[in-house]
Amino acid sequence: MARKLYELCGADAERRFSPFCWRSRMALAHKGLEAEVVPWRFTDTAALAFARHDKVPVLVDGDRTVTDSWAIAVYLDEAYPDAPKLFSGKPASQRFIATWADTVLNAGMARLIVSDIPPLLGPKERAYFVESREQRFGMTLEAVTANREARVPEFRALLQPLRTLLKAQPFLGGEAPDYGDYCVFGSLMWARSVSPLRLLDEADVVHAWRERLLDLHGGLARAAPCFGA
Amino acid sequence: MARKLYELCGADAERRFSPFCWRSRMALAHKGLEAEVVPWRFTDTAALAFARHDKVPVLVDGDRTVTDSWAIAVYLDEAYPDAPKLFSGKPASQRFIATWADTVLNAGMARLIVSDIPPLLGPKERAYFVESREQRFGMTLEAVTANREARVPEFRALLQPLRTLLKAQPFLGGEAPDYGDYCVFGSLMWARSVSPLRLLDEADVVHAWRERLLDLHGGLARAAPCFGA
Repeated sequence: MARKLYELCGADAERRFSPFCWRSRMALAHKGLEAEVVPWRFTDTAALAFARHDKVPVLVDGDRTVTDSWAIAVYLDEAYPDAPKLFSGKPASQRFIATWADTVLNAGMARLIVSDIPPLLGPKERAYFVESREQRFGMTLEAVTANREARVPEFRALLQPLRTLLKAQPFLGGEAPDYGDYCVFGSLMWARSVSPLRLLDEADVVHAWRERLLDLHGGLARAAPCFGA
Repeated sequence: MARKLYELCGADAERRFSPFCWRSRMALAHKGLEAEVVPWRFTDTAALAFARHDKVPVLVDGDRTVTDSWAIAVYLDEAYPDAPKLFSGKPASQRFIATWADTVLNAGMARLIVSDIPPLLGPKERAYFVESREQRFGMTLEAVTANREARVPEFRALLQPLRTLLKAQPFLGGEAPDYGDYCVFGSLMWARSVSPLRLLDEADVVHAWRERLLDLHGGLARAAPCFGA
């Protein structure tokens, strides 16, 4: 197949957990595009040298290489204008939701789930991950997530703008999902793929919305390995 | 003039401080539309009876009455499709930024500035405001804003998604402002109109962006009475 998406995975290549790779995977499905998964692991820097980049997702589409999940989404709408749109207007106008997911949601989630990741990695990636993340947090990963059950309500409070919006409309995109939905959903798939912690209250509209996203595109995301949370 | 915008004001009709009215005022200016200001105060319920509504902004445009700032923005793009667009695509796709400003920004700001508002109101509105807000917060307004200087850094941390975005593009709408910019700017105009507290660090990209917004549309917002913060 001419189209490939390099995606972060654990020791098990089916365990794909990057929030950014999930954005791109859902974006491809939204456009009705298939793309071979190229499993990529944290220390595989040489495998991305061709893209002059050191992070995934990386999309290879024929002779085009696109790095960075935001640029991939913008590219897909430009390259495939007749397929369903990821952005109904200017992508920049919808970018706030991506920066919110990056800075608020991912940061809030990391403090709850980061210690669940090392057991899913092979020895070499595990050593890299633990060292780099402990340096970032300035403490052991177990210390980062200590007492996490008690901190779930604080995390749920961060979802308030999402909750308010989802009471007014079924998707972040309105009546149908768009790239804004995939930005937030990608973060939730990260947690779901690595952690048994129950981040969402089942009575929350955000939970009901996540259920709808899990069912999209033939249940693509629901079929991914998870811990049932 | 056939077009009127009912806007919240203090004892001084020039002191207009509702974040939602500022959204609509900037939206009208963006569309190049003039609208007479109809000063409205907290207890003037009878004045809005015609609209079957109890809050401002209320737009009267010829024989059309539109309540709620979001609905006003959507209406303006529909009614004036040839004027510059407030939304480049589906309004729903850009609504997250409004719910974020409503729930995160306004709530965070209220805890810092709410006690600055009563002195700007007439006696009747002041009594209403203090009673209703003290009930909402469960404490005196002075207690709500106690020690506020020390809590400014916590407020500034809430702006992180905005900061990240504004490092990538000059406006929330991209190369030019759109309704997303006005949603966030409206909240900052609320604070600027009632409080001497310096919410933004002058070295922050958010401050530089607010400066650009203050200059828009002939310096409309910069001309409004403020405390210089």
